Amino acid sequence: MVVATQSLDELSINAIRFLAVDAIEKAKSGHPGLPMGAAPMAFTLWNKFMKFNPKNPKWFNRDRFVLSAGHGSMLQYALLYLLGYDSVTIEDIKQFRQWESSTPGHPENFLTAGVEVTTGPLGQGIANGVGLALAEAHLAATYNKPDATIVDHYTYVILGDGCNMEGISGEAASIAGHWGLGKLIALYDDNHISIDGSTDVAFTEDVSKRFEAYGWHVLHVEDGNTDLAAIAKAIEEAKAVTDKPSMIKVTTIIGYGAPNKSDTAGIHGAALGTDEVAATRKNLGWDYAPFEVPQEVLDYTRKAIERGASYEAEWNQAFAQYKTKYPTEAAAFERQLSGALPEGWDKTLASFTPDQKGLATRKYSEECLNALAPVLPELIGGSADLTHSNLTELHCSGDFQKGAYQNRNVHFGVREHAMGAICNGIALHGSGLLPFGATFLIFTDYMRAAIRLSALSEAGVIWVMTHDSIGQGEDGPTHQPIEVLASLRAIPNLTVIRPADGNETSGAYKVAIAKAKENAPTLLSLTRQAVPNLPGTSIDAVAKGAYTIVDSEGVPELILIGTGSEVQLCVAAAEKLAAQGKKVRVVSMPSWELFETQDAAYKESVLPKAVTKRLSVEAATNFGWHKYVGTEGDTVSIETFGASAPGGVCLEKFGFSVDNVLAKAKTLLS
Amino acid sequence: MVVATQSLDELSINAIRFLAVDAIEKAKSGHPGLPMGAAPMAFTLWNKFMKFNPKNPKWFNRDRFVLSAGHGSMLQYALLYLLGYDSVTIEDIKQFRQWESSTPGHPENFLTAGVEVTTGPLGQGIANGVGLALAEAHLAATYNKPDATIVDHYTYVILGDGCNMEGISGEAASIAGHWGLGKLIALYDDNHISIDGSTDVAFTEDVSKRFEAYGWHVLHVEDGNTDLAAIAKAIEEAKAVTDKPSMIKVTTIIGYGAPNKSDTAGIHGAALGTDEVAATRKNLGWDYAPFEVPQEVLDYTRKAIERGASYEAEWNQAFAQYKTKYPTEAAAFERQLSGALPEGWDKTLASFTPDQKGLATRKYSEECLNALAPVLPELIGGSADLTHSNLTELHCSGDFQKGAYQNRNVHFGVREHAMGAICNGIALHGSGLLPFGATFLIFTDYMRAAIRLSALSEAGVIWVMTHDSIGQGEDGPTHQPIEVLASLRAIPNLTVIRPADGNETSGAYKVAIAKAKENAPTLLSLTRQAVPNLPGTSIDAVAKGAYTIVDSEGVPELILIGTGSEVQLCVAAAEKLAAQGKKVRVVSMPSWELFETQDAAYKESVLPKAVTKRLSVEAATNFGWHKYVGTEGDTVSIETFGASAPGGVCLEKFGFSVDNVLAKAKTLLS
Repeated sequence: MVVATQSLDELSINAIRFLAVDAIEKAKSGHPGLPMGAAPMAFTLWNKFMKFNPKNPKWFNRDRFVLSAGHGSMLQYALLYLLGYDSVTIEDIKQFRQWESSTPGHPENFLTAGVEVTTGPLGQGIANGVGLALAEAHLAATYNKPDATIVDHYTYVILGDGCNMEGISGEAASIAGHWGLGKLIALYDDNHISIDGSTDVAFTEDVSKRFEAYGWHVLHVEDGNTDLAAIAKAIEEAKAVTDKPSMIKVTTIIGYGAPNKSDTAGIHGAALGTDEVAATRKNLGWDYAPFEVPQEVLDYTRKAIERGASYEAEWNQAFAQYKTKYPTEAAAFERQLSGALPEGWDKTLASFTPDQKGLATRKYSEECLNALAPVLPELIGGSADLTHSNLTELHCSGDFQKGAYQNRNVHFGVREHAMGAICNGIALHGSGLLPFGATFLIFTDYMRAAIRLSALSEAGVIWVMTHDSIGQGEDGPTHQPIEVLASLRAIPNLTVIRPADGNETSGAYKVAIAKAKENAPTLLSLTRQAVPNLPGTSIDAVAKGAYTIVDSEGVPELILIGTGSEVQLCVAAAEKLAAQGKKVRVVSMPSWELFETQDAAYKESVLPKAVTKRLSVEAATNFGWHKYVGTEGDTVSIETFGASAPGGVCLEKFGFSVDNVLAKAKTLLS
Repeated sequence: MVVATQSLDELSINAIRFLAVDAIEKAKSGHPGLPMGAAPMAFTLWNKFMKFNPKNPKWFNRDRFVLSAGHGSMLQYALLYLLGYDSVTIEDIKQFRQWESSTPGHPENFLTAGVEVTTGPLGQGIANGVGLALAEAHLAATYNKPDATIVDHYTYVILGDGCNMEGISGEAASIAGHWGLGKLIALYDDNHISIDGSTDVAFTEDVSKRFEAYGWHVLHVEDGNTDLAAIAKAIEEAKAVTDKPSMIKVTTIIGYGAPNKSDTAGIHGAALGTDEVAATRKNLGWDYAPFEVPQEVLDYTRKAIERGASYEAEWNQAFAQYKTKYPTEAAAFERQLSGALPEGWDKTLASFTPDQKGLATRKYSEECLNALAPVLPELIGGSADLTHSNLTELHCSGDFQKGAYQNRNVHFGVREHAMGAICNGIALHGSGLLPFGATFLIFTDYMRAAIRLSALSEAGVIWVMTHDSIGQGEDGPTHQPIEVLASLRAIPNLTVIRPADGNETSGAYKVAIAKAKENAPTLLSLTRQAVPNLPGTSIDAVAKGAYTIVDSEGVPELILIGTGSEVQLCVAAAEKLAAQGKKVRVVSMPSWELFETQDAAYKESVLPKAVTKRLSVEAATNFGWHKYVGTEGDTVSIETFGASAPGGVCLEKFGFSVDNVLAKAKTLLS
C-alpha cells in the first residue's frame, strides 16, 4: 500500500488504529480487528456528527453512543482519549485491561465516563440503544414544546456480525422498527469475520433485508475502509429519515491495515505480534512510536472540547428560556434529572390489615404501580406480552407507540431479552427515568443476561415477575419456577424481594423505587394466587429483609422462616403449635439481600444463633437456604420440577400445606 | 355461518376444535384460540402428509412434529387421540391439566408418547425442530446408501406469533437457512393475536420477508380457516423444495368458530364460557355432546393406525435389506439406536499423574472429546462461535455444512440460545445421537431456558462451558461468572461437574457420556487457565461427586473443600498446615449433584459430621456452600462482580491464593 500524504481525518483514524494495536500489544490481550476496521466510521461519526461535551460527559442532551461490539473497546477508549475526555488518558490506554484501570476489557459505564452502557455480551448494546432512543423519544414528547426543544439527540450504535447473530438484537430491532424510532442509527460493521473464521461458516443470511423486514431504513457503505465521504453521506441520510430507525451496513476489512492478518479471524481477538505490528506501521505509513499521537492530530481532534462546550452552552440557554416559559415542566424535568424523589411519594402506597380480604401479590403490585404512576412521571415500562397477567398497566397513561411517545405503557411483545436490555438502556439514559419490565418469573431465564447487566452496570430497573411458584398451577413445569429464586438471589447487586401480602408488596415497591434512584435494580417475585393479609407485616419492615411477625414468649424453641405465599403456612402452623404449648417464632423473610445488609445485632435479634431448630418454607428449591436454617434445621421445599394441575393441588401435593409444615416442625422439635 | 354438509376432513377438524373447547372448559384453564384456528393446518398435515405409527410412537423413521406454540397443547392431544395413539384417551382429555394426567398444560415429551419435545416457553420448539432436522440430515448422510435409504423423514413445526417474536426463533431460523435443511417445514399460524391483543401493538414486521432473508423458502396460505386444498398444496410445495427449509405462513382467525370471541385476545388463553361454547357449537353446526366424537370421524382418522403399521413394515423391510447389504453400517446404526455404548469406550479416556505438566481443563476436555469421537460416532456438536476457545473441534471429522451433513463439527454461530435448543432437538430425535454445545460459562445466561429444558425434558446433552471463573482474566466482569455455578447447580436434574485436573476431566466425560445415554444432561465447567495434575485425583472418583484426595492421620481438625481450579490451593495449603502439625483433609468436590446421590455412609466418610471446621474454596459466590461448610465453617469465595485484569492477578486480588486460604484456615483452627 502506498501511503500518500494523509489528511487529518486519515491521520486521526490511523491514530485510533495504532492506539488499539499498541495497547493490545502491551496487554498481550484484546481485540484489535474491530477498532482497526471500524475506526473510519467511528471517527467520522464522533468527529463530524456527534454532539457531546468531553468535559461534561453527562451533559443531558448529548448524543448517545453504544459500542455493541464491546470487545472492540479500544476503539472507544481511543476516541475518548483523542476527543478530550479526562476519563481516558494515554496512561490509561497503556493500562488497557489491567487491574483498576479505566480501560477494562469491555466498556463499563460505571468505570469510564463517556461510556454509556456496559457491553461485551453480544447484542445487548443494540438493545440498550433502543432503550436510549426510547428514552429520548419519550422525554421529547413529554417535555418539548412547539417553541422550545430541550430534548433532542441521536443514539448511535456500532454493532458487528456477532451482535447480529444474537437473538436479542433481532428482538430489539423488530420492536424499534415497530416504534419507528427515527433517531436511532446503527452502523453495522460488516467485516464478515467472527471468531470461528469467515461468517460463511454460520452466517449467510441477508442482514439488510432482515432489517428492512423489521421496518428499518437500510443503507450500505461499500467501502468502509477508506471512503469517508460515503460514510458521512450515509449518516446524513440516516439522520434525515426520522420515522424509522436506520441501519447502515458498512462493509469493512477486519484488522484493516495489517498486511498479513487483516481479513482473518486471527486478528479478531489477539494481539498482532511484534512483526505484524511493524508491518502494519509500514503499511499504513505510521512512523510514530507506540502510544505516540502526532500533535497535529490532537490539535484537530480536541476541537471537540470547544465544540462540546458550545453545544452545552447553547442548550443551557435554551433550557433557561424554557424554564422561564414553562416553569412547571422545567421543575418537573429538573427534579427528574436530579434523581430526587418528589416529597411524600411513598405515602401513596397502601397499607393493609388482616381483616382485609387478601389478593394475589401481583394484584397488590398493580395497585402500587398505579398509586405511584401519577406521582412519579418517570415510571415507564410494561410487559413482554403478559400485561394483563403481570398486571402492569399504568391506568393514568396510554400505550407508548409511534406517534404517542409521551405514553408510559410499553408493549415489548414476546421479547423478554430485548425488554431487559431496553429497560437497562432507559435507566442508563441518565435522565431519571425509572423503567420496569415484567414477565412470568420463569421467563427471567430468557432475559437473565440483561438482568445480570442491570446489576453489573448499575441500572435502576424494577423487574416485576409474577406467577412465582408451582402455585401458578396448570401451565405445568415449563412455567413453574423452582430454581429461579435461588438463581436470582445469587446475582451480586440484585435485590430480590418476595412479599407475603399487601403490606409487604407496598414495602417492596418502597425499597425498589428508592434503590432504582440509587442505580440499583430490584426484582419482585409475585404470586399468581391470592394470599391473606397477615398479622405483623408492615411496609417499612420489608427494608430489613427479614423480621419477626409472630413470636413466642421468651426464647423460641423453633423458628419458622417463610417468604411470599408460604408465610401464611408458617403463621397457621405456629398458631397450632402455640396452642400445643410450643414456643414458635415466625420470621417473614421477603429479601435475603436486604437482610444481609443489616447489622449483626439486628440479625441476631431475628435469627438468634442459639435457636438452631429452624424450618424454612418456600415453594422453591432449598438451594441456599442452609445458610439460614443451619445444619440442624430443615426446609419445606421442592427439589424436582413441578407439574400441571390447579395451583392449590400442586402446592398441596408438593408439601406446601400446614400439615406438612407441622409434621416437619414436630420432627425438629422432637 | 351456514353449515353445509361437512366433509370428513371438516368434521375431523371440528372434532379437534371441540375436544379443545370442551377440555379447556372442563379444566377452566387452557388456550382454545390456537387449536381452533390451527386445526385445519394441523389435521391436514397429520392426516394427509405425516408418516407415523400410532401404535409405535417411537418408530425411528417417523416424521417429527413440534408444536412450538406449546400453549395450544390441546391441538396435539386431540390429534393424538383421533389418530389412534394409546397415550391420549378420551378420559385423558377429560383430565386435561389435572394432576398426573397425560395431558398437561404444555406438551411434555417425557409424559405423553407422540410428543417429541417439551414446548411452552416460546420459540424453543422451532429451534428444537432445527435440531430434529439436523439429526435427520446427519443420519441420512451417514447411513443412507445410493441403493438404500433408511433415514428419510420430515420435521414439521407449528409456531405462532409469540414464537416468531422470540429471539431464539430468529437465531434458529437463520442457522437452519444457512444449513439449507430442506426437510424442515414450519407452519406459521399467523393469527395476528397475542396475549396483549392485536399483534399491531408490538409486532408489525414482515415475517415472510425476514424468513426469506434467512434463506428460507416462503409460502402463504391466505385462508387457513377453510381452504384445506391450499394448505395441502402449500405443504406439497414445501416438501418439493429440498435445498431450503420452508416456512408456510398460514393466515388464520384465532378461536375460529367462536362467534363473539374469535379474533380477540380473549380466546387466546381462557375457557370460552358456557354461552360462547354453545354459540360456537351452533355456529359450527356441531351437535355433539362434550367430548363426543362421531364414530364416522374416528373411523376416518384411525385409518392412521393401518397406514402407520404399513409405513413401519415397509421401513422394517428396507432396513432388513440394508442389513444384508451393509452389515457393518447396520450394526453401527442399531447400536446407536439402542442407546448402548460400544464396549471399552471409556478406556480411551486418558489418566494423568502429578508429574505431568498441567494444562487447562478446557484443554483436557479437548483431549477427551477427541479420544471419544472416533469410538462414539454419535458424538456431534460444537460451539457458539468459540470453537478455538472452547476447544471443541473433533479432529476426526469435518464441518457440518450444507452438502456435508455427515460431518460432526457444528458451527452454531453466536447463537447460544438456539444452540441449546438445537442440541435438545438432536438428543430428543431419539436416535442415540449425543450432542454437545459449547460457549463460555458466563453465556449460559443466554441459553439458560434451553439448558433448563434439557434437564426437564430428559435430553442427553453435554454442555461444555469454559472460562469458568474470574481466572479467565482480561475480558472483565461481563465475561466472568460469579453466580453462574450456583445458578446451574440449582436446576433439578442437571449434573454440573467442575473438574480439577486431567483425571477429573476424563472422569467428568465418563459420567457425562453415560448420563447422556440415560437421557440426562451434564454441564462441564472448565478453566481457561492451566491447572496442575493433583495427587489423589482419579477418573472413577468423579462419579462420587466428592472424595478425599489428601488426608491427615486420624480425624482431621479441618476439611478444605475445593472444586476445579481451586483444589490446587487446598492441596498447597494443606501441605503447609500439615508441616505445622495440623490435621487437614482435602476434599475435591467436582459435583454437588453426584455427591448428593451417594449413600449416607459414603457422605459421612468424606464429610464427617463431627468435623465442623470446614473451608470451601471456589472462585465463585459462596451461595449454596453453607450446606457443606455448615454454620461453623467458612468460605473462600467472591461476592462481587469480577474485574478486568490478567487472570492470575484477578484470582490473587480476590483472595484465591494459598496465603488467603491459609489465613482463613488458621482463623477456623484458632
